[in-house]
Amino acid sequence: MSTFGNFFRVTTYGESHCRSVGCIVDGCPPGMELTEDDIQPQMTRRRPGQSSITTPRDEKDKVLIQSGTEFGITLGTPIGMMVLNQDQRPKDYGNATMDKFPRPSHADWTYLEKYGVKASSGGGRSSARETIGRVAAGAIAEKYLRLAYGVEIVAFTTSVGSQHLFPPTPEHPSPSTNPAFLTLLQSIDRPTVDSHLPVRCPDAAAAKAMVDYISDFRDRNDSIGGTVTCVIRNVPTGLGEPCFDKLEASLAHAMMSIPATKAFEIGSGFGGCEVPGSTHNDPFVSAADVVVPSGVAESGAARTNTPRPKLTTKSNFSGGIQGGISNGAPIYFRVGFKPAATIGQEQTTATYDGDEEGILAAKGRHDPCVVPRAVPIVEAMAALVIMDAVLAQQSRERARSLLPPLKR
Amino acid sequence: MSTFGNFFRVTTYGESHCRSVGCIVDGCPPGMELTEDDIQPQMTRRRPGQSSITTPRDEKDKVLIQSGTEFGITLGTPIGMMVLNQDQRPKDYGNATMDKFPRPSHADWTYLEKYGVKASSGGGRSSARETIGRVAAGAIAEKYLRLAYGVEIVAFTTSVGSQHLFPPTPEHPSPSTNPAFLTLLQSIDRPTVDSHLPVRCPDAAAAKAMVDYISDFRDRNDSIGGTVTCVIRNVPTGLGEPCFDKLEASLAHAMMSIPATKAFEIGSGFGGCEVPGSTHNDPFVSAADVVVPSGVAESGAARTNTPRPKLTTKSNFSGGIQGGISNGAPIYFRVGFKPAATIGQEQTTATYDGDEEGILAAKGRHDPCVVPRAVPIVEAMAALVIMDAVLAQQSRERARSLLPPLKR
Amino acid sequence: MSTFGNFFRVTTYGESHCRSVGCIVDGCPPGMELTEDDIQPQMTRRRPGQSSITTPRDEKDKVLIQSGTEFGITLGTPIGMMVLNQDQRPKDYGNATMDKFPRPSHADWTYLEKYGVKASSGGGRSSARETIGRVAAGAIAEKYLRLAYGVEIVAFTTSVGSQHLFPPTPEHPSPSTNPAFLTLLQSIDRPTVDSHLPVRCPDAAAAKAMVDYISDFRDRNDSIGGTVTCVIRNVPTGLGEPCFDKLEASLAHAMMSIPATKAFEIGSGFGGCEVPGSTHNDPFVSAADVVVPSGVAESGAARTNTPRPKLTTKSNFSGGIQGGISNGAPIYFRVGFKPAATIGQEQTTATYDGDEEGILAAKGRHDPCVVPRAVPIVEAMAALVIMDAVLAQQSRERARSLLPPLKR
Amino acid sequence: MSTFGNFFRVTTYGESHCRSVGCIVDGCPPGMELTEDDIQPQMTRRRPGQSSITTPRDEKDKVLIQSGTEFGITLGTPIGMMVLNQDQRPKDYGNATMDKFPRPSHADWTYLEKYGVKASSGGGRSSARETIGRVAAGAIAEKYLRLAYGVEIVAFTTSVGSQHLFPPTPEHPSPSTNPAFLTLLQSIDRPTVDSHLPVRCPDAAAAKAMVDYISDFRDRNDSIGGTVTCVIRNVPTGLGEPCFDKLEASLAHAMMSIPATKAFEIGSGFGGCEVPGSTHNDPFVSAADVVVPSGVAESGAARTNTPRPKLTTKSNFSGGIQGGISNGAPIYFRVGFKPAATIGQEQTTATYDGDEEGILAAKGRHDPCVVPRAVPIVEAMAALVIMDAVLAQQSRERARSLLPPLKR
Repeated sequence: MSTFGNFFRVTTYGESHCRSVGCIVDGCPPGMELTEDDIQPQMTRRRPGQSSITTPRDEKDKVLIQSGTEFGITLGTPIGMMVLNQDQRPKDYGNATMDKFPRPSHADWTYLEKYGVKASSGGGRSSARETIGRVAAGAIAEKYLRLAYGVEIVAFTTSVGSQHLFPPTPEHPSPSTNPAFLTLLQSIDRPTVDSHLPVRCPDAAAAKAMVDYISDFRDRNDSIGGTVTCVIRNVPTGLGEPCFDKLEASLAHAMMSIPATKAFEIGSGFGGCEVPGSTHNDPFVSAADVVVPSGVAESGAARTNTPRPKLTTKSNFSGGIQGGISNGAPIYFRVGFKPAATIGQEQTTATYDGDEEGILAAKGRHDPCVVPRAVPIVEAMAALVIMDAVLAQQSRERARSLLPPLKR
Repeated sequence: MSTFGNFFRVTTYGESHCRSVGCIVDGCPPGMELTEDDIQPQMTRRRPGQSSITTPRDEKDKVLIQSGTEFGITLGTPIGMMVLNQDQRPKDYGNATMDKFPRPSHADWTYLEKYGVKASSGGGRSSARETIGRVAAGAIAEKYLRLAYGVEIVAFTTSVGSQHLFPPTPEHPSPSTNPAFLTLLQSIDRPTVDSHLPVRCPDAAAAKAMVDYISDFRDRNDSIGGTVTCVIRNVPTGLGEPCFDKLEASLAHAMMSIPATKAFEIGSGFGGCEVPGSTHNDPFVSAADVVVPSGVAESGAARTNTPRPKLTTKSNFSGGIQGGISNGAPIYFRVGFKPAATIGQEQTTATYDGDEEGILAAKGRHDPCVVPRAVPIVEAMAALVIMDAVLAQQSRERARSLLPPLKR
Repeated sequence: MSTFGNFFRVTTYGESHCRSVGCIVDGCPPGMELTEDDIQPQMTRRRPGQSSITTPRDEKDKVLIQSGTEFGITLGTPIGMMVLNQDQRPKDYGNATMDKFPRPSHADWTYLEKYGVKASSGGGRSSARETIGRVAAGAIAEKYLRLAYGVEIVAFTTSVGSQHLFPPTPEHPSPSTNPAFLTLLQSIDRPTVDSHLPVRCPDAAAAKAMVDYISDFRDRNDSIGGTVTCVIRNVPTGLGEPCFDKLEASLAHAMMSIPATKAFEIGSGFGGCEVPGSTHNDPFVSAADVVVPSGVAESGAARTNTPRPKLTTKSNFSGGIQGGISNGAPIYFRVGFKPAATIGQEQTTATYDGDEEGILAAKGRHDPCVVPRAVPIVEAMAALVIMDAVLAQQSRERARSLLPPLKR
Repeated sequence: MSTFGNFFRVTTYGESHCRSVGCIVDGCPPGMELTEDDIQPQMTRRRPGQSSITTPRDEKDKVLIQSGTEFGITLGTPIGMMVLNQDQRPKDYGNATMDKFPRPSHADWTYLEKYGVKASSGGGRSSARETIGRVAAGAIAEKYLRLAYGVEIVAFTTSVGSQHLFPPTPEHPSPSTNPAFLTLLQSIDRPTVDSHLPVRCPDAAAAKAMVDYISDFRDRNDSIGGTVTCVIRNVPTGLGEPCFDKLEASLAHAMMSIPATKAFEIGSGFGGCEVPGSTHNDPFVSAADVVVPSGVAESGAARTNTPRPKLTTKSNFSGGIQGGISNGAPIYFRVGFKPAATIGQEQTTATYDGDEEGILAAKGRHDPCVVPRAVPIVEAMAALVIMDAVLAQQSRERARSLLPPLKR
């Protein structure tokens, strides 16, 4: 379905070549300052055409709020948002071979099998333009989370093909034990990430290697995948709705709904499956000595006198989630993106009716690596998950607070 | 929340030491033969106490259908199911240290942070007993899928700690390119899996190595994680509800809601992120020559004259899902389980109030490796996801079939 | 579907002759004292067999909490509840004519049309036993609302056939203008209602007339319908989720889901459609002078320092809801129940296959008027609606409270 | 919430003075011809300004499809629709008294209590403009239902104030027993209804009386309510999802979510509560002799060979729904609308802060009776309910059809 979330409900619409794409955000807290200026930056970060290694198509992607705010303040009513499709009719795509052959590893054929009809060109609903509504909605969620709790969400590229920011080593098979990785999680911010455009890998040497690596794929008209790691800091404890909507389950759902994703891991991930329990268990320690980040004091948590939790964990194999519930430690996860299916090479495939095999010619120019552009989409979906969990837990906490104290 | 699914809705209840655990299944198709005999086998496979390397507690786990069937036929009304908790009061667990110290990497502390109260002993709702309702519901879904489409769902252990059934090699960094792996996916069945108890790894040598490996952890009062791979065969095309409920997103959600999971990958997974697009793209080929498995002819798809899709893919990096929609090829995915948090060792931790650090003594005997027991739970959750997607798609197909034909 | 509510989610199961009936309540606030003693009273009020004018079948209906509490405190986890069906196999019902003929105005035929199968006897899922789960869940909701806000929910019989407690008069075509009615809404409580058993009409003369009236129908083996009016006092302002889940829409949904209901009106209802706007508009007045009921001071609202709203309305044509949102005034509504379809007379009908018309013989003894027994069911459904709306609004209020103050 | 439906999901957005109002329809069957021409007629019928007794404001209300169709065919993806607000800034409304005083029986005060902020002028989200999205979505649902099943939905005004089309008589206390009423239900169509503009009461004499009656209220700067009756013909059997989503419960929910509604009754309604069961029960008769309406043969049901049910009922007190499930007979229900709260008279009220009582001056010109304009809104909501129920039942029927036949 095209709705995500139970409390902060985002419904998106739009295909690659229709009039507009957009979304309705239902359930946004009222009384929050909000204008397009809060939303456009992430829209722009998502936009293609930012460098020679990303697609040169220039989509303006100017978001327009339709409803739900007045004088720059949210009313608590549904927020409609739209972005006009500048290119509302197929040009570069539609051609005889594409009408005849489903493109390998695209959604052409499965959409036809599912719906019996399909958009005539481009990806239709499976196009990356579908993610515009997600990013717009995510920017609203993120603003609330920052104001109310000082939540910080930062994603960055951790690998492109075989080029890893933290390649596994005998000492650190998983980065969860690597102090450099854990330090980065504490400090990384978006300006730093974007200072390493076009790959958004926050390390000069690794970023340089990735650019060269991607360029090589571009030159060979090929594509390559990679991974994005995301950290969420200052998350209140208690988020996540077991047993089915554990916080990591909602994050996995959100991430695996992003086009081209193949894998998800929370905290120690697959690597953690190889670590003995005696090491993997995160000992509790008093949180009293944990330094509150300076930014937080000025924004949400401190201002609103939200009490800090009393405990934290010494290590963080759990990735900030235990029993499906946030424990206040940084949440971090990694998402794997496959190589883009669109490549500038001829490919063998079969006709839609299966009667004939043939050659699908390549046309147009495309991203050799979509991973850097996925960074704001990962952040947006993370924001939607946390926001939804926050509203669920706020209801519970408020409900409980009105009950008479227990007699014990 | 404790409800999973939109069309085939499963709501579970129960903690480790309450009167009973169980579930309500709402939306089961009417007119299907169903008795406890259809459900009990998977309940029994889930049950602990099946070998020396699993926990010796003997839980009977006899399922009782409360409603929704008459004379062994489903009525289409909610199916209530329950399993009595034989051990309804804490014995081995409750003790002074546990009241004072949250167990590392258990849900003790996060449940308290979330709810303000928590079950006094064992895991409460975070206990593995919560999965009983899932397995019972999954058995119903699975029966329908088998009868209607010949769907087969088989999970098995693919690694325990560093012991892998298909260890990465230079030639096959991901098993998706390994013919032995792909052949196994086509043929593996549950009797074969269970012939390799207690580890459920369908290879004698690998299973032997895993048993030894786990025994070593047991002897050291430690625990170890591992991975379960699951294949779903004979899935109809067209399943999955983009953009947010892509089939892999729902599978990821389902799997990451199982206790102790840390990672999920579909098809080529993280490994696929390192493969060039020109290799990773799955070329379409005519499905005409694909041999229909013999079992299917006797059951659903053939009997119901469901037309076979005209295309399939030569390779299967996609894992049977493209654009979030099943393409008819086998769906396969891998789930990572962390080492069990309960270990027979003393652990340092802090008191609930954070005032004091201390030592949590170990008590009881526990699974050194929960992975083999997770096999039927993975199968159950897979069945719930596919069943829900099937009902959604059946509605769409039926709705479309009543429209006048398009004029083109 | 068999789930009601989005935040306080109740899922019920059970037919007339299966093992048990019951429900799962998901989303109950944690930390509330709760035992079967809180639930049983309403179960008992719902129970048939309370007088000579209700059905003499004796169903014990003893509720058993399965999960979700420990030591009499809610854990915040799903609360499973069940009531055993003492009569698990058809006796008085099943017979040759019933297998052949669908009973007029029962659900026999429509269930068969919908599901293709149906329970062989009694009403199956359409039986009034289905309401047991509702009443059990409603008792929990009600307890919370009473503790947290001092909410009082009282329903009573306002008409049986043509016998009305407040018959329309030229002066008061709708009771909304009748001071006697408005005074009753302020003061009526359940003990008073039950002091007028068996009809639960809180006026000695009217109750006497109703008993005689019903007895007459009983003697003629006929049945008669009636109306139940329900008042909800001390409702916090701000409840209801426009635009689709306005509070009256949710109440209407809830009430019209009770078996045998035919009509619903909020506040002035159909009568209000005939009143000029200049009269029907409820002028706002300061709430400062409104006397706080004594009971409230001891319980929720006062204790929790919930601020009283500043305004109230002089008249209450609105029935406590404006724009779909509660305004703090008493909410009142009326529900119409048709005459019970089961009557002790022969009836002409047709066979299931439509080939033959025939006579359906009457068997068993049944309620000539189900209206009095519906009273606790109406209360339960009202509690579920208010509870769900409370949790939604608590989330919003808490979310807003964490935002920085607006600059104006 | 602003989403209606589980299978055919409509999410609306928009206030009275924002950029646009509209909706997203998710779950529309693919492969249906659909352009704005299918939607605009109902939009236009909903539009104000159609006569001297309705408001003279001229809103153009031109609907624009944003997504979800290509070349006039639905893709099965979300259909975004929007209508620009021509009047995007307050003019006639905003004034000093309205900032100070909440208007009696408007949503001004309750919105402020709920959200803490409110739109500065007009009704904001509580404005009747919110219904634009409903009508647009309803037109799509209706088209499908007509094509697939020949469903016909027609609403009309049955009373304005005390002027009734079928005033209660001693012989026919409820119109359910009145042959003239039942005949009208069989034959009424929209052209006939609209031939009696402006009141949309399909009887020349009654319409004339209503026009005069309303004019009188207009001249006195007052308002008056009324009732709309709606019939749905050619509904397939088996629609409705007990126990909570009985078809009449969903209809009640839908209707009571329309602004200004106060009452709902299905079939015999409140009147039926006074009829003995022996009369009220609808005897089954063979449907073989029921004449299939001519229009149906050309469209859905006949074309698609949907088998006609074997039974129907001789009388129709049930209103086409038994046990919460459609029985194939015409569904009819009545909705009560209160007098519009906006009147051209001074009204006493209190200030928002409750400190002061005062006089709210009247401004602008408004509908003395909104009932005729509600007709297409009632039809739209009816279409949404039936469509959602159809998709649910189609899933069930298709699921069942794939099961092996039962052995009996």
